[in-house]
Amino acid sequence: MDAGMMIMKGAPVAAAIVERATAQIEKLKAQGNTPCLATLRIGEDGGDISYEKSIIKRFSAAGAEVKVNVLPKDVSQAELESALQNLNEDKSVDGILTFRPYPRGLSEERIKKLIDPGKDVDGMSPANLASVFSGDPDCFAPCTARAVIEVLDFYGIEITGKRAVVVGRSMVIGRPVAMLLLSRNATVTICHTKTRDIEAVCREADILVACAGVAHLINHNFVKPGQVIVDVGINVTENGITGDVDMNDVSVAAAVTPVPGGVGGVTTAVLLEHTVKSALVGR
Amino acid sequence: MDAGMMIMKGAPVAAAIVERATAQIEKLKAQGNTPCLATLRIGEDGGDISYEKSIIKRFSAAGAEVKVNVLPKDVSQAELESALQNLNEDKSVDGILTFRPYPRGLSEERIKKLIDPGKDVDGMSPANLASVFSGDPDCFAPCTARAVIEVLDFYGIEITGKRAVVVGRSMVIGRPVAMLLLSRNATVTICHTKTRDIEAVCREADILVACAGVAHLINHNFVKPGQVIVDVGINVTENGITGDVDMNDVSVAAAVTPVPGGVGGVTTAVLLEHTVKSALVGR
Repeated sequence: MDAGMMIMKGAPVAAAIVERATAQIEKLKAQGNTPCLATLRIGEDGGDISYEKSIIKRFSAAGAEVKVNVLPKDVSQAELESALQNLNEDKSVDGILTFRPYPRGLSEERIKKLIDPGKDVDGMSPANLASVFSGDPDCFAPCTARAVIEVLDFYGIEITGKRAVVVGRSMVIGRPVAMLLLSRNATVTICHTKTRDIEAVCREADILVACAGVAHLINHNFVKPGQVIVDVGINVTENGITGDVDMNDVSVAAAVTPVPGGVGGVTTAVLLEHTVKSALVGR
Repeated sequence: MDAGMMIMKGAPVAAAIVERATAQIEKLKAQGNTPCLATLRIGEDGGDISYEKSIIKRFSAAGAEVKVNVLPKDVSQAELESALQNLNEDKSVDGILTFRPYPRGLSEERIKKLIDPGKDVDGMSPANLASVFSGDPDCFAPCTARAVIEVLDFYGIEITGKRAVVVGRSMVIGRPVAMLLLSRNATVTICHTKTRDIEAVCREADILVACAGVAHLINHNFVKPGQVIVDVGINVTENGITGDVDMNDVSVAAAVTPVPGGVGGVTTAVLLEHTVKSALVGR
């Protein structure tokens, strides 16, 4: 990487979000109302457990609560739905996060429709996704999508009028982040596996959001001078966790988020803020 | 316009859709189940009345039913919601279309959340919009957005891998048509009033969808040779109804839909097909 390229670390972005949230948490606690997130994990996936740990760390440091729920890998759809319904009805729970994707055989679609939109702090329900789609600024967007915007805002990257290119079109990150960028007045392009000459399309970007889930996909062919790159990839490789961006081969870029140490930590901070927001609205 | 430019008229596209629908309507009628759309108009807006007439004409020609409902311009929100609720519960009604935008003072947001998603044949409810966003091929998309895809398919325009640029970002057409194009594997860019050098962005398009609502916005500066243009604009000017495209100034394009005579007529055909689909699922 180049000495002139700004590394947009996630830690100070997360710290700023946590600071905003902490003031609210203290108020809520004074009213005997500690914000509480319920996590719902199915099985013992290493990625899920690692994410769960980072959530617990983030929440406990801020004085918020996490109720960890674990179901066996071979849980039935009915048992899963019953567990979710209990969390929907539990008055001590402000937010619910389920680790995805679920093991084979379980329907994510049914859970999306079942989760209480008011507690759906990671934006999986149709009601929240419709709000993201329509550009409602107050909606619970998927936390990682919101985290991308937080990073750009923290580092003073103007979004209005810029060309933003999103590589990836999942409902967890690609499509929602595209809509958040659109609602912030970027001119947004969505790329995917069927995109022709994807390198050229990406070079049009002032802001490039990489969420393809392909280690080191983004190299110098995708980058134009001055580009800002947000790397949302978390790929497990022989050399450890790497992003979608080859950090050593994008030196003409103006700025890039590292992996690890970038967007991931901001995601848990957004999750905290969403949970606090839900607690403020009331259970 | 150029002799070499194909004019993609809407009538044959609509006829093909109506033909598909008619076979289903006959089956349903034989079972004593005539597909029925309820329209809900507020006040006496000329555009609404004209659209209502074209719906009635389309449905009656195909043997389907339209129940016209008209509320006074000064209707209260409560009365509007009560009228909608009656249509939701009316077992003789398969589809509901409300003419938008509503007069000032009435909340469209509340109606979107109230309409039965199963009868929401013009895709305004959060449930249907979330399905459009996620690329569910069976969803009730807003009819005009679906009509754009029908036009492209009818005229044999390949979508996969093509660069599609949508000018406009409304929830009625711009955003939904962008998502339909994405789910058909186009690389999609969404432009709007804050887009810089919009002409250059539009020239990147293989398929250009104009839904800005600005008469004759699209001229030769927006077009590249071989481009396919779908004009969704319906603008009332001194010279009558015109589209967003200046037909006399885009001669390098390969194909364009006229206004009038283009997408509009296809929209009512899609509305018919959606109503029939709802009737097939059952009331």
